[in-house]
Amino acid sequence: MQGFERDGLWLYGLHAARAALANNKRRIKRALVTERAATEIGSALLGRIGYTVVQVSEVARVLPPAAVHQGVALLCDRLPRIALEDVLASAQPPRIVLVLDQIEDPQNVGAILRTAAGFGAAAVIVQDRHAPAESGVLAKAASGALDIVPYVEVTNIARALDILGRNGFWRIALAADGESPLAETAATDDTVLVLGGEGRGLRRLVRQTCDIAAYIPITGKIESLNVSNAAAIGLYELRRNERAKPTSALDH
Amino acid sequence: MQGFERDGLWLYGLHAARAALANNKRRIKRALVTERAATEIGSALLGRIGYTVVQVSEVARVLPPAAVHQGVALLCDRLPRIALEDVLASAQPPRIVLVLDQIEDPQNVGAILRTAAGFGAAAVIVQDRHAPAESGVLAKAASGALDIVPYVEVTNIARALDILGRNGFWRIALAADGESPLAETAATDDTVLVLGGEGRGLRRLVRQTCDIAAYIPITGKIESLNVSNAAAIGLYELRRNERAKPTSALDH
Repeated sequence: MQGFERDGLWLYGLHAARAALANNKRRIKRALVTERAATEIGSALLGRIGYTVVQVSEVARVLPPAAVHQGVALLCDRLPRIALEDVLASAQPPRIVLVLDQIEDPQNVGAILRTAAGFGAAAVIVQDRHAPAESGVLAKAASGALDIVPYVEVTNIARALDILGRNGFWRIALAADGESPLAETAATDDTVLVLGGEGRGLRRLVRQTCDIAAYIPITGKIESLNVSNAAAIGLYELRRNERAKPTSALDH
Repeated sequence: MQGFERDGLWLYGLHAARAALANNKRRIKRALVTERAATEIGSALLGRIGYTVVQVSEVARVLPPAAVHQGVALLCDRLPRIALEDVLASAQPPRIVLVLDQIEDPQNVGAILRTAAGFGAAAVIVQDRHAPAESGVLAKAASGALDIVPYVEVTNIARALDILGRNGFWRIALAADGESPLAETAATDDTVLVLGGEGRGLRRLVRQTCDIAAYIPITGKIESLNVSNAAAIGLYELRRNERAKPTSALDH
């Protein structure tokens, strides 16, 4: 059932629940919390909504069997769709945006959202038909970040990269056979980091729309890194580079 | 059933199978492969053992329901236990070793093994009673790395850190409240990176046994990174630092 119901989706876990409660764009329709979880979350956040204090079995009953819910389940509406242009207008430079080209595993995308929040990314952009929809599994893996980082669904990834390019973003495709090591391609201005799905990698047109293809130097012992690990290294490198050099609008 | 049987464990997936077949320490007792998987793996590797070409349903039948097996399942013995001292003797300096302090999730540990292989780590050390045993899930997440990177089970983590210290390793504990950013603590000599379990973090004694506690600079929007992402960033930083500076035996 993947955390879905016809009338909304169930989010669960303390981090995901706290972030949903703190997000004023998130409409919460029903909240089931154990007494212990209610104490942990605190009345400042829970006071925002009506909630029912229940036994732990009642929380489990509305969720998939393996859900690690920590005593809280919130029935929510999906977040309102957000446009790329609105994200660009509201974020502070230097902005970092991640583009996920057909990465469909909710665990990976959730972990990427979490890291994106950790490094203050302005948005995570996905293709609407080839990305996991908002779900309890995604939100749990994101550990709250689904309610922190704008999750932007676009119809066409290459077009989104065009828009970002016209807005002055330096577009780095991450690929095992990229032309330069990542550390040498990172700019200190607005940057997009583009990652492809495990197995397939980046689609040709998506890669061609980028300004450069970079690789993470690894040994030949394995073919590639897990995609969420590659994203984490990419975000770390971009922020590291930014700290190391003075920011300049003239860099490219 | 977690990939276990009384008479061994089932490994599955193309990467895990190829690495197991290439590892002369891995005893394989039975191999089920579809015709397609046999072609993909190739006779050079499969020729090492006897194998049975079967329908895809027969591969699925011996595995847990959700296993992404790609047409191959190998019934194996667990790898022989390997001693920390033997690992140290055989690896080339500068050596990087990961220590996982009670990280119990096989997905996370598998992803960490994969990244450890990617960055040529000499070993991943875990505490025997608080680490996932070898299993199909672990091997699949490791994408072959379980048969590449020595997975060293020790009884006492602090004692292992003592041994590493006496062997000249610089011991970095990774902790959200560490005293310096990781990039400033990385040495270019033999290094151990120590990571704690999600939620609990590092145990006090383990942390005290390290030479320094380092943090990865993140925003305050989330509490912490996923542990496999933190490990990936840590390994990347250590290798990056090594490339940037000339290696010197006098650094510490």
